Amino acid sequence: MNSAPHPLTLHEDRLFAAEPTQRAIARRLYAQVSGLPIISPHGHTDPSWFAGNAPFANATELLLVPDHYVFRMLYSQGIPLDALGIPRRDGSRADVDPREAWRVFASHFHLFRGTPSSMWLNHVFHDVFGLRVRLDASTADQYFDHINAALQTPDFRPRALFERFNIELIATTESPLDPLEHHAAIRESGWGGRVITAYRPDAVVDPEHEQFPDALRQFGELTGEDVYNWDGYLRAHRQRRAFFAAAGATSTDHGHPTAATANLSPAEARRLFDTVVRGEATAAQAELFRAQVLTEMAAMSLDDGLVMQLHPGCFRNHNLGLFEHFGRDKGADIPLRTEYVHALKPLLDRFGNEPGFQLILFTLDESTYSRELAPLAGHYPSLLLGPAWWFHDAPEGMWRFREQTLASGGFYNTVGFNDDTRAFLSIPARHDVARRIDCAVLAKLVSEHRMEEDEAAELAVELAYRLPKKAYRL
Amino acid sequence: MNSAPHPLTLHEDRLFAAEPTQRAIARRLYAQVSGLPIISPHGHTDPSWFAGNAPFANATELLLVPDHYVFRMLYSQGIPLDALGIPRRDGSRADVDPREAWRVFASHFHLFRGTPSSMWLNHVFHDVFGLRVRLDASTADQYFDHINAALQTPDFRPRALFERFNIELIATTESPLDPLEHHAAIRESGWGGRVITAYRPDAVVDPEHEQFPDALRQFGELTGEDVYNWDGYLRAHRQRRAFFAAAGATSTDHGHPTAATANLSPAEARRLFDTVVRGEATAAQAELFRAQVLTEMAAMSLDDGLVMQLHPGCFRNHNLGLFEHFGRDKGADIPLRTEYVHALKPLLDRFGNEPGFQLILFTLDESTYSRELAPLAGHYPSLLLGPAWWFHDAPEGMWRFREQTLASGGFYNTVGFNDDTRAFLSIPARHDVARRIDCAVLAKLVSEHRMEEDEAAELAVELAYRLPKKAYRL
Amino acid sequence: MNSAPHPLTLHEDRLFAAEPTQRAIARRLYAQVSGLPIISPHGHTDPSWFAGNAPFANATELLLVPDHYVFRMLYSQGIPLDALGIPRRDGSRADVDPREAWRVFASHFHLFRGTPSSMWLNHVFHDVFGLRVRLDASTADQYFDHINAALQTPDFRPRALFERFNIELIATTESPLDPLEHHAAIRESGWGGRVITAYRPDAVVDPEHEQFPDALRQFGELTGEDVYNWDGYLRAHRQRRAFFAAAGATSTDHGHPTAATANLSPAEARRLFDTVVRGEATAAQAELFRAQVLTEMAAMSLDDGLVMQLHPGCFRNHNLGLFEHFGRDKGADIPLRTEYVHALKPLLDRFGNEPGFQLILFTLDESTYSRELAPLAGHYPSLLLGPAWWFHDAPEGMWRFREQTLASGGFYNTVGFNDDTRAFLSIPARHDVARRIDCAVLAKLVSEHRMEEDEAAELAVELAYRLPKKAYRL
Repeated sequence: MNSAPHPLTLHEDRLFAAEPTQRAIARRLYAQVSGLPIISPHGHTDPSWFAGNAPFANATELLLVPDHYVFRMLYSQGIPLDALGIPRRDGSRADVDPREAWRVFASHFHLFRGTPSSMWLNHVFHDVFGLRVRLDASTADQYFDHINAALQTPDFRPRALFERFNIELIATTESPLDPLEHHAAIRESGWGGRVITAYRPDAVVDPEHEQFPDALRQFGELTGEDVYNWDGYLRAHRQRRAFFAAAGATSTDHGHPTAATANLSPAEARRLFDTVVRGEATAAQAELFRAQVLTEMAAMSLDDGLVMQLHPGCFRNHNLGLFEHFGRDKGADIPLRTEYVHALKPLLDRFGNEPGFQLILFTLDESTYSRELAPLAGHYPSLLLGPAWWFHDAPEGMWRFREQTLASGGFYNTVGFNDDTRAFLSIPARHDVARRIDCAVLAKLVSEHRMEEDEAAELAVELAYRLPKKAYRL
Repeated sequence: MNSAPHPLTLHEDRLFAAEPTQRAIARRLYAQVSGLPIISPHGHTDPSWFAGNAPFANATELLLVPDHYVFRMLYSQGIPLDALGIPRRDGSRADVDPREAWRVFASHFHLFRGTPSSMWLNHVFHDVFGLRVRLDASTADQYFDHINAALQTPDFRPRALFERFNIELIATTESPLDPLEHHAAIRESGWGGRVITAYRPDAVVDPEHEQFPDALRQFGELTGEDVYNWDGYLRAHRQRRAFFAAAGATSTDHGHPTAATANLSPAEARRLFDTVVRGEATAAQAELFRAQVLTEMAAMSLDDGLVMQLHPGCFRNHNLGLFEHFGRDKGADIPLRTEYVHALKPLLDRFGNEPGFQLILFTLDESTYSRELAPLAGHYPSLLLGPAWWFHDAPEGMWRFREQTLASGGFYNTVGFNDDTRAFLSIPARHDVARRIDCAVLAKLVSEHRMEEDEAAELAVELAYRLPKKAYRL
Repeated sequence: MNSAPHPLTLHEDRLFAAEPTQRAIARRLYAQVSGLPIISPHGHTDPSWFAGNAPFANATELLLVPDHYVFRMLYSQGIPLDALGIPRRDGSRADVDPREAWRVFASHFHLFRGTPSSMWLNHVFHDVFGLRVRLDASTADQYFDHINAALQTPDFRPRALFERFNIELIATTESPLDPLEHHAAIRESGWGGRVITAYRPDAVVDPEHEQFPDALRQFGELTGEDVYNWDGYLRAHRQRRAFFAAAGATSTDHGHPTAATANLSPAEARRLFDTVVRGEATAAQAELFRAQVLTEMAAMSLDDGLVMQLHPGCFRNHNLGLFEHFGRDKGADIPLRTEYVHALKPLLDRFGNEPGFQLILFTLDESTYSRELAPLAGHYPSLLLGPAWWFHDAPEGMWRFREQTLASGGFYNTVGFNDDTRAFLSIPARHDVARRIDCAVLAKLVSEHRMEEDEAAELAVELAYRLPKKAYRL
């Protein structure tokens, strides 16, 4: 291409309605929240970044390889994962020059037009790296060199970025088997950044997880409990939850195929567990076991105060061939229809009215927003709604979340934003999108005289800052 | 709080788009319908109010205690129902001063920001009671005293409000066991207000209703029919329907867990009924029985001309603990996924093309609007669509209803608005919201040159006044 | 009516937002695409029109009788199909004067207010026939006479209209049993219009289709294969696909009740086929057979390069009485809830990552857009999303399609517009609506600073012209 590169701009009014009255209100609301510290109560950044504070490797390793939003879209348009240098299941990688991989990405960046990835990435390019031309084939090398050079400077080390991003707190997510040594190192380092963990026990809860037998064995070794015995298994959970809480955790997180919960008698639960540990559980028994463990986790939450998160409804690793060659988490996770009303009843029958219990619900099935989730959260004191999740973490998805939960759930049964990301550099961009959309939603309500602007201003701060701290007990 | 109370205003352009072209059109359309009489063809006001015309007790008893929209939201944020003086299952009530309950409500009124309850209540406060400050903790007593004083004056008696609200007709909803003495008293009183009933036979139709055995017994006593015999049972329905029609009813209403209908042979129906009356029906048989009775009701509608309404898809009394202590209808009803295409086919196979038959369908599952309901209503001459119902009776829900039913169903297969409420004072507010949203929807269509303004003006009047009268045969 | 007829106008900004910034952008984008040739890669026009080039009969026969969108709405409001002269199942027709039928239509044209039919028809009236008064009872005869006179002129013959409509290519849809003689006649005529076919084998694939036994017999006679033997049956498909490809086809199309696919072993498939040809297949076996044939069709696509289209999820001929008297395709088709994630996995496990394979997915269940279809198409290289289909081919439906598929699927995993119609005269109107809505969607994104206008301009052309050519290999 011979033409001059296109300028890259971040418009100060982006994501606000074009209509001047709404835009003016949105601007005023946003001015109250744009500078608030970031609360990131649920996500997947790597705590070793903040413990070790080593520089990030290069643009490709930092921005392309770990971001399944990005490489899934490239893959959908025929680009092999090997061309991007994505690690294979066996740990090997195609012999691809990171610069070449970056060029492939750059020359296909138009595929992301209109998607949240393009917004997040352009925000990172513009605000974190100070780039002022648009990414395309003609600017690929300029980008690659510029970003790599920046990453070698002290200002782009993880802790410096954490501070520059004005992050008040970030939660990572770990398995019960994790020794949490990075979190300990961070605490002991004297650095002021608050990086906490969250208890995500799926590997020792899901009999259908390929790592379950190994994970269960390690769970026993780590805790010294007889985890092949139902009571010992529960004690092991209590022990690790206490360890996580001592390391700052205020929440647990559960990624199940469905939202099913169960309320078995102890004798039934014991029999079911015996079947599970013998490796003889049918699919239905595996489902019932996960369901029962959710209810047990709720019981433990009542004791230790950890807030519970449920992220159900994803068919993981749907692409058989890709899974065989590249393994888990390669952008082939597909949402499923999800039911909550019957599924949650066993758990809610026991704990739904308990003052100390808090369960934050997420969904990938937007048809449940107005039909199930908002009516549930607008009634049960124990239930709150997590924000638009994953495939729906986008301006349109956030609008749908608000417009479909507002009538029955209101604003105060929601918990503000989760970035839920391992893409550390995009965290300010993601929170900024969420704050802008909430301000845009509120501005529409004010402009249509459904609330006064002082009420909207108060809500904008609640949604951006206070509600997440309250919901996650931070 | 020391700060001056916030002013309470009702903006004349509320719920209209901020965009000036659309707003101007919406204003002109609304001017044609804002003064039209209210047709309320389906709702739950108490006919004894209009028969006895006694003053309402106080603000708490009138506006808080009966409104499950209000106390469910308060409950979801941790406020015990006892703190609000909600009656318990056994009829007892916590010893709560109504003024104290009102203060709890007032100090949590911010929870309703953006919800329809806040719009309806502010409309009542402003227009019915003439209040000009916003409700919050600082104004709670002022509100309580002002409202109570007003309720003692003649202008706030039920009949005076009925007239002030410009209600042309209101339908209440009664069980077949109801003697309809209040409706008779109203008719005999010489008062001109038209208060009719509707036939809602759920208690004698649903074998899983806890009152079914008792209700069935009373049904027999009242009608003199042998209601433990299928033919006698059907004759009893015909007799009570005739009694209701004589008392002004033009419709029946059916609140079933699903939309299932059936078309059994008389012999099969008789056998099923025998199982039901012996109390031996399984869940599937109970479902089949309800399904068959719907089809029988349709057959009777063909004879007596009563329009049929179907309100399916709610999991009633989902909260076990709350149900045990406080009983039914305490804000713990949660919508369920609902299927119509297979479910209605047995009934439609028999009566779907009958010129005299009219079935109005409602849903709590918005995913059915564009997929099932609009295509069904846009084909079958016997089917019409009721308005956005219950959890969806809100500005966003009304927009979704129109935007998702318009292409396949058009405007003329819908029936205008139902307030469906027992909150009598909010009836003008609710109809006003519906009229404003319909005008806003039409204004958008006109502004985007999809219809001319004269067509929209005609439609605005149809939706506000003519279609409900036609659909409900009023 | 004595009043003067209303003027009929087509506003140059129709379907663009009223908000001036958005409208101005939309106008500029639309100016780039309004004159592009029409690519119509999927539809149901009759190839004999273009082969024979005979004049159309009259307004009623051309615009009313074949358009199930139109007569379904009229029927839903109580107009008997006989009053419109719709042919009955036995081929007979009520003795209705076409002018009388037209008058019935005209006097009920208000029923279509706000629906796509009114937009399409008004566009045809205005632009194709040059009418300048609105259709209603008072103008019915004027319309009828004017249209009939026009149809007798050379400019209104099918080929002249094809050229005037600036159609670059149109695909029709035929059964494998079709000799494609009209397509041959067109090719041999020397006329330059490109009219290709598409392979739609439902009648020989669906054991529950009432024509299946006859169709299968003819399939054998036509191909000379033993189609009662699984291998012969597959060879017959390969032969007819080659014949269709030679006649210009670039795609196949499959209209199944669900999206189910299967991946049986050859021995299992053979046994299943034997059951099917014996007429002994249960409903589940019929479903499994259709599922297996879809996967076989995918295998053949890999060899012959025909792009595959799947149109699932419709309950055909739902109205029993109407079906008995009037037969198939009389506006009584109703969408069903449809599942794709599990359903497509068997096929995708085999061919989902094949570079040469392309499957275009459609849906009548909009709840799958964001939950299933966009995530699938945003990952699998073989999957693309067809446009908003049938009941959703309307401005609101198109907006929902874009807003619910954009985040996960982007623009480039979609295929542009299909008119999918047998209403030949409405084709320019339908493509115009699609182009306008895409420009309006893009204008909103630009006005909210989510992309730059040069990017939107490129996308507008992609969506209107380049993506359909690429997706359908034209």
